[in-house]
Amino acid sequence: MDIKGFLFSTVEAAIKKPGRKDLALIFSEVPANAVAVFTTSTVKAAPVLLSSKHIASGFAQALIVNSGNANACTGEPGLLAAQETTQLIARGLGIEAEAVQVCSTGVIGVPMPMDRIRSAVPALLNGLTSGTLDDIAQAIMTTDTFPKMEARSGQAGGISYTVAGIAKGAGMIMPNMATMLSFIITDAAIEPTFLQQSFRQAVDCSFNAITVDGDMSTNDTCLVMANGMSGNPTITEGSPEGNAFNTVLNEVLLSLAKQIVKDGEGATKFVEIRVSGARNNAEAKRVAMAIANSSLVKTAFFGQDANWGRIFAAVGYSGAEVDQSLLSLSFNDVCMAKNGVFAGGDAEARGTEVLKEKEFTVSVDLGIATGTAVVYTSDLTHEYISINADYRS
Amino acid sequence: MDIKGFLFSTVEAAIKKPGRKDLALIFSEVPANAVAVFTTSTVKAAPVLLSSKHIASGFAQALIVNSGNANACTGEPGLLAAQETTQLIARGLGIEAEAVQVCSTGVIGVPMPMDRIRSAVPALLNGLTSGTLDDIAQAIMTTDTFPKMEARSGQAGGISYTVAGIAKGAGMIMPNMATMLSFIITDAAIEPTFLQQSFRQAVDCSFNAITVDGDMSTNDTCLVMANGMSGNPTITEGSPEGNAFNTVLNEVLLSLAKQIVKDGEGATKFVEIRVSGARNNAEAKRVAMAIANSSLVKTAFFGQDANWGRIFAAVGYSGAEVDQSLLSLSFNDVCMAKNGVFAGGDAEARGTEVLKEKEFTVSVDLGIATGTAVVYTSDLTHEYISINADYRS
Repeated sequence: MDIKGFLFSTVEAAIKKPGRKDLALIFSEVPANAVAVFTTSTVKAAPVLLSSKHIASGFAQALIVNSGNANACTGEPGLLAAQETTQLIARGLGIEAEAVQVCSTGVIGVPMPMDRIRSAVPALLNGLTSGTLDDIAQAIMTTDTFPKMEARSGQAGGISYTVAGIAKGAGMIMPNMATMLSFIITDAAIEPTFLQQSFRQAVDCSFNAITVDGDMSTNDTCLVMANGMSGNPTITEGSPEGNAFNTVLNEVLLSLAKQIVKDGEGATKFVEIRVSGARNNAEAKRVAMAIANSSLVKTAFFGQDANWGRIFAAVGYSGAEVDQSLLSLSFNDVCMAKNGVFAGGDAEARGTEVLKEKEFTVSVDLGIATGTAVVYTSDLTHEYISINADYRS
Repeated sequence: MDIKGFLFSTVEAAIKKPGRKDLALIFSEVPANAVAVFTTSTVKAAPVLLSSKHIASGFAQALIVNSGNANACTGEPGLLAAQETTQLIARGLGIEAEAVQVCSTGVIGVPMPMDRIRSAVPALLNGLTSGTLDDIAQAIMTTDTFPKMEARSGQAGGISYTVAGIAKGAGMIMPNMATMLSFIITDAAIEPTFLQQSFRQAVDCSFNAITVDGDMSTNDTCLVMANGMSGNPTITEGSPEGNAFNTVLNEVLLSLAKQIVKDGEGATKFVEIRVSGARNNAEAKRVAMAIANSSLVKTAFFGQDANWGRIFAAVGYSGAEVDQSLLSLSFNDVCMAKNGVFAGGDAEARGTEVLKEKEFTVSVDLGIATGTAVVYTSDLTHEYISINADYRS
């Protein structure tokens, strides 16, 4: 994979458990057009508060990210720590602090060990000559069981470009306008307003369409940097190249989002929830999210129990307009219920077979209008409890 | 416990597993003033649809309830089954069908076995001479591990009356204007409009202030019947007797609601969430419910992990107005965080000690205004997963 003009570095800064890389740096040799979406929580981590200010310029040239400490609920010292971190990197790279994005993930409420960051920064800067994007994907993992990466290439004006992305996140996943950590880099040249629009749309259909446990984090950040180093003619909205870029970006983000769900804490199932026939798309998404976040539905998935009644119950409390006599539901192509009642026949046995698969689709039709939504989720398992009851110990 | 003019009966109708009572009848010798609140879900079980029509009269004289089958998502046949059930009881008791309330709880989407109900009704009617309210509390259990009952007595005009209640529910508990099944009976004479008002207010502070898993059922029903057989002068609003009745009713409902949380599926902890300093009471409740329904918070309770950061994260995504620099949080009397940051000192160790208790209080102050709320919840445990992954098998 060749992404022109980006350098990578990771080090052990002893923020996480010993023996694991926990501080990472992405550097673009030239300023990149950049867009980011952040958590909509009112309790925002210090790096989110700082990075959202920095990104207002529309540019970024470096990103420093640590795992092991969220730098959230850390007050003024937390903000100062985030600031100092961007300054250290800016000084080392000879750029403005405003061109540096900073992200953190880990435990909330513990002061950032700035002495360790300070000690680690020189090695981090030196490492830029030899690092890879893979290293970064590894270094940002917390409860993740595998690193999450995706790359696609495109062409504009006969010149190839690459869109590559990494992500972390396994629990506390219920994004809303923003999500866990995901960083997308591309060497394509893209018109800034179009980049913003394309990115936001792609986030909506990917990171904002997944849920593991319904919890949204204080640190969720999704960032794209486009440095134009591939030398392609600038991609603009509405052009064939623009449409192709939309597709490539969508594919990268959707792949990363699905990887997060597949790595959902303790997950044994990957479930696609498709809702149709809603009053509008927003109501369809509301229904899909209610299903995807229902503890009873998720434990039924884990138990491989074709309990469609629990899904109808979630539809009922979603708040969307529903006429229960019009509801229908399928597991893959097995119709479990129609006109609000059990489909009968061998539906129970066939539906149970579907739920034994590792991946399946639940389709719910509300039968009212044409609103649709797709959401991806996992099951709720013993392992989720174990991971989260013991996370800090 | 003496509740004048009420008779009780239970039988085995083979709706549930063999050997368990699953059909129950409460009968008042005279028509009783009655008020009920039902699930706000748009997917309502047939008995909810029928009973909400019947109760519009303001009167009820009998209540028939079955466990083992929810008669939800059963379409027109389900409605006919509920109707026939009330007619069978009405005929047997010599009253109007409209005076009969019908409730169901159990699996969703399975047709009601009306042949078994028909066969069981004669024995049910005959049993009225010998049954007790305890029997009813037993018969309505599903995943409950103990029957839930409470009784208090009051006085009006020198005459004693009793308020007694039973409830069932352990999972699918996140009421909203209504809740699982709970039946309150009293022999007090109460002015009907006052009864309605007193009851709704008591439901709001009890059943609408608890959550186990955030799921609301298709069948939630809470009903009060007041038959006036104690012979007291009618209790009215604003009188000392009215205030005393409010207190008695509140105590009965709150006790039942707390019993439901304590019996929360797999629960090992009973947690009181107190939120203060919110913009208003509604926002305080929103915050309390976000905390109480967070899977990450609930698993931390189970893990006895004083992870106050997860609680702040839930506060942040609750949607309520929050200034994170004003947030404070305590476990019992141990201040864990103040002005949005960790309280320091030995808070971590002392907070962990609190979380080792079976019951404790989490207090969150938003520091903005004077809105308050109290919500009761349980932890999220391995046992919850086991119960719900295997419920139907």
